[in-house]
Amino acid sequence: MSHPHPELGLPPELPEGALRVTPLGGLGEIGRNMTVYEYAGKLLIVDCGVLFPEPEQPGVDLILPDFTSIRDRYQDVVAVILTHGHEDHIGAVPYLLKERPDIPLVGSQLTLALIEAKLAEHRIRPYTLEVKEGQTERIGPFDCSFLAVNHSIPDALAVVVETNAGVVLHTGDFKMDQLPLDGRLTDLAGIAKLGERGIDLVLCDSTNAEVPGFVPSEREITPALERAFAQATRRVIVASFASHVHRIQQVLDIAVKNRRKVAFIGRSMVRNMGVARDLGYLKVPDGLVVDARALDDYAPEQVVLICTGSQGEPMAALSRMANRDHQIRIVENDTVILASSLIPGNETAVYRVINGLTRWGAKVVHKGNAKVHVSGHASAGELLYFYNLARPRNVMPVHGEWRHLRANGDLATLTGVPADRVVIAEDGVTVDLVEGVAQITGKVPCGYVYVDGLSVGDVTEASLKDRRILGDEGFISVFLVVDADTGKVSGGPEVQSRGAGIDDTALAAVTPLIEEALAQAAADGVGDAYQLQQLVRRTVGKWVSDTFRRRPMIIPVVVEV
Amino acid sequence: MSHPHPELGLPPELPEGALRVTPLGGLGEIGRNMTVYEYAGKLLIVDCGVLFPEPEQPGVDLILPDFTSIRDRYQDVVAVILTHGHEDHIGAVPYLLKERPDIPLVGSQLTLALIEAKLAEHRIRPYTLEVKEGQTERIGPFDCSFLAVNHSIPDALAVVVETNAGVVLHTGDFKMDQLPLDGRLTDLAGIAKLGERGIDLVLCDSTNAEVPGFVPSEREITPALERAFAQATRRVIVASFASHVHRIQQVLDIAVKNRRKVAFIGRSMVRNMGVARDLGYLKVPDGLVVDARALDDYAPEQVVLICTGSQGEPMAALSRMANRDHQIRIVENDTVILASSLIPGNETAVYRVINGLTRWGAKVVHKGNAKVHVSGHASAGELLYFYNLARPRNVMPVHGEWRHLRANGDLATLTGVPADRVVIAEDGVTVDLVEGVAQITGKVPCGYVYVDGLSVGDVTEASLKDRRILGDEGFISVFLVVDADTGKVSGGPEVQSRGAGIDDTALAAVTPLIEEALAQAAADGVGDAYQLQQLVRRTVGKWVSDTFRRRPMIIPVVVEV
Repeated sequence: MSHPHPELGLPPELPEGALRVTPLGGLGEIGRNMTVYEYAGKLLIVDCGVLFPEPEQPGVDLILPDFTSIRDRYQDVVAVILTHGHEDHIGAVPYLLKERPDIPLVGSQLTLALIEAKLAEHRIRPYTLEVKEGQTERIGPFDCSFLAVNHSIPDALAVVVETNAGVVLHTGDFKMDQLPLDGRLTDLAGIAKLGERGIDLVLCDSTNAEVPGFVPSEREITPALERAFAQATRRVIVASFASHVHRIQQVLDIAVKNRRKVAFIGRSMVRNMGVARDLGYLKVPDGLVVDARALDDYAPEQVVLICTGSQGEPMAALSRMANRDHQIRIVENDTVILASSLIPGNETAVYRVINGLTRWGAKVVHKGNAKVHVSGHASAGELLYFYNLARPRNVMPVHGEWRHLRANGDLATLTGVPADRVVIAEDGVTVDLVEGVAQITGKVPCGYVYVDGLSVGDVTEASLKDRRILGDEGFISVFLVVDADTGKVSGGPEVQSRGAGIDDTALAAVTPLIEEALAQAAADGVGDAYQLQQLVRRTVGKWVSDTFRRRPMIIPVVVEV
Repeated sequence: MSHPHPELGLPPELPEGALRVTPLGGLGEIGRNMTVYEYAGKLLIVDCGVLFPEPEQPGVDLILPDFTSIRDRYQDVVAVILTHGHEDHIGAVPYLLKERPDIPLVGSQLTLALIEAKLAEHRIRPYTLEVKEGQTERIGPFDCSFLAVNHSIPDALAVVVETNAGVVLHTGDFKMDQLPLDGRLTDLAGIAKLGERGIDLVLCDSTNAEVPGFVPSEREITPALERAFAQATRRVIVASFASHVHRIQQVLDIAVKNRRKVAFIGRSMVRNMGVARDLGYLKVPDGLVVDARALDDYAPEQVVLICTGSQGEPMAALSRMANRDHQIRIVENDTVILASSLIPGNETAVYRVINGLTRWGAKVVHKGNAKVHVSGHASAGELLYFYNLARPRNVMPVHGEWRHLRANGDLATLTGVPADRVVIAEDGVTVDLVEGVAQITGKVPCGYVYVDGLSVGDVTEASLKDRRILGDEGFISVFLVVDADTGKVSGGPEVQSRGAGIDDTALAAVTPLIEEALAQAAADGVGDAYQLQQLVRRTVGKWVSDTFRRRPMIIPVVVEV
């Protein structure tokens, strides 16, 4: 398998008739999926999602794809195709449309409805083109057609991008549930037909490539949900993603059977279920759903609450219930079902919520003790079916960390794709399709773009490094006032510390050491502000290391008066 | 099930002839296991381990059990029994012996050898009493006997503590491998015999109580290890815990079959394997193990490296290899086997290591893609066997978070233990065994004790809260010099910021706002240092919130000159 050399330079100019594929997110991580297709001077973007931060990206709200390499070329963008309505595929669209608001968005009915609802909150009304499986659209120089795929949200699409450079199949997120609840199968016949015609390059979802076998059908979780309902003697609270229409449909169906009313809790849950219901993706019998404020009218054994927070997000309803910081007070014998995945990195937060709920006496059903979740991404067994039908000439695994991309590449080679036609790329790496061969040709700038509060990109890697030091070790600051004329210290040292675990009494011991060092410096004629700062830094640093074996940030400030 | 009321007070004086059980760690968390048994004025401690910090305990090295409630009673402690040699059971012993160095340590041969090696690094030589399964010892007023149990380290013991108050069985960590590599089974016959005689209280390992079924035998991982070796064309690097003697024995045996030499990498691995080999727990054929420095004498396909770092610890050998920051440089086609668990909370770190190794071209085998690990703790199926043999009158689940304790309690009731005889306690809760009934009677102080660098307990919850704010948001400090006589500002405001993601240019905008507020204050006659600090805090806080929607720590400092 070919993979990028760490010292790749900028790519050469794209040869005429060639197609360039540049992932600006989603390769080397699970999230912020965004791929740019370039042909004949025009750019077609597929997906534009966000990534959620990890613990070593403290204080960050969201991470965006890096638009740097297309910043001068927004006018060349012919459209953004959105494969489905998940945050990691649509979440960065508002930020892109702030750069150029009239980029057309292309997607299925539900996908567009979800992005439009989100954009409305940003006060943006997008230009849209609604498409369906089977449809073909000429978008700039790209002939695009769409195939139905099955995923953990309805109405997901794979995209076929055709140019004179060849036929590219971009799967988006998909799996192959053979008994999907809505009857909408991943279009294997369409993939097979395309494969017979000849696919030059496949970009394929890698998320579950390491997982052997097959994802069970969504309907296989029905028994576990039914059992949890049957055993529930009081309220049932179901936490799930606000986009998982099929999962919530199952909960509604079981609620009807158990003669329980349903209330949706949380802004995104209420908004998305409203959209899904209005468009007919969610079938809601009349009178089933009640307003959360009306719950007091029903006995505990007559209600189901459906809320967000299944990933342990601290501000979501479920975490707040676990902390008794929500109007819904968990009591003994409530049943809580986490009908959702556990995204890697969230374990600590999720288990904290489960422990909190358990402590109040709730019975908590989750994927660790019951079959209440199936994944939305094809496992290795399904990917083998896919490759054997698609028979691509070149493969570029996408949507995954390195371990997933490699595992996906290995599967492709097992089905007969030559190893040197499997391209393991990463964010920013350009892959050019020239005369039927896909090859790495260079790398464009592609870093993490952090959203923190109102600002995009102001928080840098240097800020995060400072945050990590401050967060692990705290700081000691030392203020000195120096007479501008004489260079003598006229005030301070005023020593302060936060987060270093050094109390004021212990901290007082450093003041005489600083004074001594300053006196020595004065005697030696050392006196400019910079030198004094260095002196203070060294003195305090040595003291704290010798005394506590710690390394807080040391911040000397010298003010001349 | 009875469980503690949040507002429990201190326990009453212990009635004569009663036994008090107080967990000082391990209930409500996985780690820092420590239980105090009190009878007739004497204290017997079982285990004294450490807990590793979670992300919301930033910068902390270790967490200890809280000794506060026994601080005045060290002279009453008759012994510390150590059930086995894992860090979460022995790691806090050095800190306890610093309080009273002559507390005798009781344990099996390997357990004592491991704690002695650790204490030697702290320059402590302990008093020890070596015991074996089947042995009975009178320790103060406690008649103690020991039963063999099977776990992920050899030579683990369960403890039976008898007094006139009754018979208590404390399982320690255990599972029930029916084909253990060393032939040493969990002594079910002994448990059955004790059960027939009558067990008043069981303290039982809850770690895997939520996991249905049975832990596979340790020997069931042999095929996966053999397959990885058979497919390896270059070096094999195995990461595991430095205490997992049986796992490493398997690796050695397979290395012999594959004519590879073995080198141990890392201080704790070299030390522990030396101890295990000297005592005969690890069988090492002559000439198999070579010094790491001699590896260059062998071809890559002739060597196996065994190292630590399977939990993604940043300073361990494996992480450094993944970052190319180790003398062992990972190259294409090296095989890395993570033959270990993935402790919840470590996922991000472990996957980062796997991705790093994969990026350099290594083939990484781990529990996510091969059967290279089995747990050391009994699953639900095994716990049912245990309860049906032990038939205890009272049950107190230990070693677990709330979800594990509850699940364990549910299993006990399924086997016929009355629900009101299952006591779900948490750290510091006192459980008294009086006339055959175990009941919660109160709660002693029991917090987290943080080790950070050289200090124990200096880092408080307040320090951690500061660290979390600093780590998420950074800080802005404002330094003012005020004339002591006139109260007028004579220097500053000097504004500094780190970690807030606000660059100096943006930061400069706040200075005029502060100056304006100070001028207004001066006009209003407001001038003492405290009031000026509050004014600065408000002014800067409002600016940063309005401009950036962020909340860095704001630190105003006023120095009078």
